[in-house]
Amino acid sequence: MRSFMRKLDAGASAVAENGLIDRRALLGQGAAIAGALGIAPALATGAAAEPLANAPLADGPWSLEVGTAMRPYQVPSRFEKAVVRSIDNPDNLPRNSRARTPHHHLQGIITPNGLHFTICHGGVPDIDPAQHKLVIHGLVKRPLVFTLESLARYPQTSRIGFVECGGNSAPLFSNEPLQENVQALHGLASCAEWTGVLLSTLLEETGIDPAAKWIIAEGADAPHLSRSVPVAKALDDAMIALYQNGERIQPEQGYPMRLWLPGYEGNMNVKYLRRLKLTAEPAMSYYESRTYAQILPNGKSYRFYFLQEVKSFITAPSHGHVLKEPGYYEISGIAYSGTGRIAKVMVSADGGKSWAQAALQEPVLPKAFTRFRMPWRWDGGPAVLQSRAFDESGAKQPTRAEFVALRGETTKPPSVLVFPSQHFNAITSWAVDAKGTVRHVYA
Amino acid sequence: MRSFMRKLDAGASAVAENGLIDRRALLGQGAAIAGALGIAPALATGAAAEPLANAPLADGPWSLEVGTAMRPYQVPSRFEKAVVRSIDNPDNLPRNSRARTPHHHLQGIITPNGLHFTICHGGVPDIDPAQHKLVIHGLVKRPLVFTLESLARYPQTSRIGFVECGGNSAPLFSNEPLQENVQALHGLASCAEWTGVLLSTLLEETGIDPAAKWIIAEGADAPHLSRSVPVAKALDDAMIALYQNGERIQPEQGYPMRLWLPGYEGNMNVKYLRRLKLTAEPAMSYYESRTYAQILPNGKSYRFYFLQEVKSFITAPSHGHVLKEPGYYEISGIAYSGTGRIAKVMVSADGGKSWAQAALQEPVLPKAFTRFRMPWRWDGGPAVLQSRAFDESGAKQPTRAEFVALRGETTKPPSVLVFPSQHFNAITSWAVDAKGTVRHVYA
Repeated sequence: MRSFMRKLDAGASAVAENGLIDRRALLGQGAAIAGALGIAPALATGAAAEPLANAPLADGPWSLEVGTAMRPYQVPSRFEKAVVRSIDNPDNLPRNSRARTPHHHLQGIITPNGLHFTICHGGVPDIDPAQHKLVIHGLVKRPLVFTLESLARYPQTSRIGFVECGGNSAPLFSNEPLQENVQALHGLASCAEWTGVLLSTLLEETGIDPAAKWIIAEGADAPHLSRSVPVAKALDDAMIALYQNGERIQPEQGYPMRLWLPGYEGNMNVKYLRRLKLTAEPAMSYYESRTYAQILPNGKSYRFYFLQEVKSFITAPSHGHVLKEPGYYEISGIAYSGTGRIAKVMVSADGGKSWAQAALQEPVLPKAFTRFRMPWRWDGGPAVLQSRAFDESGAKQPTRAEFVALRGETTKPPSVLVFPSQHFNAITSWAVDAKGTVRHVYA
Repeated sequence: MRSFMRKLDAGASAVAENGLIDRRALLGQGAAIAGALGIAPALATGAAAEPLANAPLADGPWSLEVGTAMRPYQVPSRFEKAVVRSIDNPDNLPRNSRARTPHHHLQGIITPNGLHFTICHGGVPDIDPAQHKLVIHGLVKRPLVFTLESLARYPQTSRIGFVECGGNSAPLFSNEPLQENVQALHGLASCAEWTGVLLSTLLEETGIDPAAKWIIAEGADAPHLSRSVPVAKALDDAMIALYQNGERIQPEQGYPMRLWLPGYEGNMNVKYLRRLKLTAEPAMSYYESRTYAQILPNGKSYRFYFLQEVKSFITAPSHGHVLKEPGYYEISGIAYSGTGRIAKVMVSADGGKSWAQAALQEPVLPKAFTRFRMPWRWDGGPAVLQSRAFDESGAKQPTRAEFVALRGETTKPPSVLVFPSQHFNAITSWAVDAKGTVRHVYA
């Protein structure tokens, strides 16, 4: 009998050092594997299924009594209380608030609406959609006002794609690896199916003065957050997003409408969108002249650089996980690029000395999370797990050393203004020690 | 200026009678359209954007005060209270309970987890995942017990796909069109990204006795619902699903694990799965020998017919919607097939006399919802909107007349046992009258 674990144990399937396995072995397609069948006992690699005799089927209390009533809007089980966003400003003090997605608990490519990341700069506004309006004015032929009702009359588009804060992964600018999990390190990125009206459609309605080069997008929340968007992006794939995974956008994602600029830094995807003003020059607003205008090691300013570049990180195993015993594990993570589709993801178990190509879970969509998976047999010894993504444009995720050389790192910054904290996209490394503990390292 | 609405008004773009418009006109690609530009005033077709002067930008109260704190697990705005599942047994009386998805409020292809449809037969069990086990036994070489922890060690697979109750759309068996909305008529189907372990992987672990032809799947809820599944399906694409749109399965969808048989009737996708017993014969359980074993008009029994066949319905406009004024509207809906991908969806605005091909929103995935869209200019007169889906196998959605001839309809059934109520997949018709009211009709 060709059991799953026996195929793994057949041993002829290494694709890189330190236990990375040819995934074709799992599909039963390896001739070399077939010849070695039956050598190892089933389960020898440590998949923890037990023989039936040791654990007879018993009725839990939930099998003996009637359950509860259904709810009009359901939420996860009370046993999943740990699977929540981490809130860095729970008392809603007058500063930014961040809620991070718990990637180490999630699977697939869709972030459920309850767990999509959020940054707000003045709390979460409680907007009455019947009163909310979107104005498009400035260098246009016909300034117009749109309501939710009028937007519903235009053609809708749906697209699965990510939003990532420009400051996601900022802890990795530290010159020492912070001992934090993937939620704390990379939790300011999420992926959903967004539906709305292409901004290009609305700009056909208003017309565009040829002098217009920028669009200043402004939110209706108290900070009236505003950002400047190139007209070219607006006419490409920008969307006035109204729905998130099928239902109306969540209050923390911009209810009742947000600007969505696929692949561009999160802060530009203005939430609670109430105004688009077409102009000849950018606004030089707070977030573009200060937060997203850092000084680089070469003395130049890092400014008006919008793209979230190709990136990946392993979500399992990751910091905080413990491997109970040697044996088979699946290395799994997320890759994405603001440029387009992920072309491939390479995985290493020996800190980058050898690499093997991961399987990409279909569908592989442009500017969306792509789930990658790599079979791994942990031999109980030390390992350093890394992933490196490549996108269809040929761009590849940098090593941390390459990235730091260009962008700097943080020791004791002389000023918050030059603290590098934006657009980190280099490789993340997780070290597994002999006890199975997984920690964040630089490698 | 080529405004969006002027392009629509150019009039050279009809693709079928009664206002169906060539969607290429919306992309600005129609030469015939370009020649007619400027004829009609912008907005003449009734897209309700207002000139700016009539509605100046004003601060709502949410623009003047700090918002609320973030929540670890977010839910929709309080203004979306109407967008909920309809519950047919709110007092949890000792019978079936159904919660239906509000398709008339939703967009895209992903059903958000809060709104996925549910049927339970003994309430919603509150299962402790640490105590839950899955046993695979019967005609296998090695009976095994799996926990959530051991299942996590196997390779995971993610797939976007639908689940539909075999009884979805049952109201359309009525010989008179019931005046109900798309939630009441078709709300027992939803679509999510499911992640879990392929059942074929676990059956490699247990081994299969060649005498095994069926697998009896049993739930851990109080009714211990059980269904028989052909081994061939189990070895094809059946999944032990653990995650739903990224997070752990909702309690009403089978937490902590369910059987997912892509494309097969919902009832077979046994929730709270605790046992798979391989057998030579089917179990002839309640739901297969009674509910899903109806007598057809030709006297044969409709039994062990698992596939949810090719189907579609328009979600907007649909019963209960009111069109305020003549002009442009997008006709939008959902198509799916248990056989594979949707190949095309045809839409009619004149009750099936003329048809035009709808645009399919990418990605078009096998055994998943596919969102279709069709531009329509309502002239203010009567219209009957229909959609008809075709899948990649060549199967086409039947007309109601074709369907009823084969499957029967309901007048005064002599017995509940012969009440036809399963696997309705024929065309749904929505009539628009001169007041813009949309009603359910047979056409």
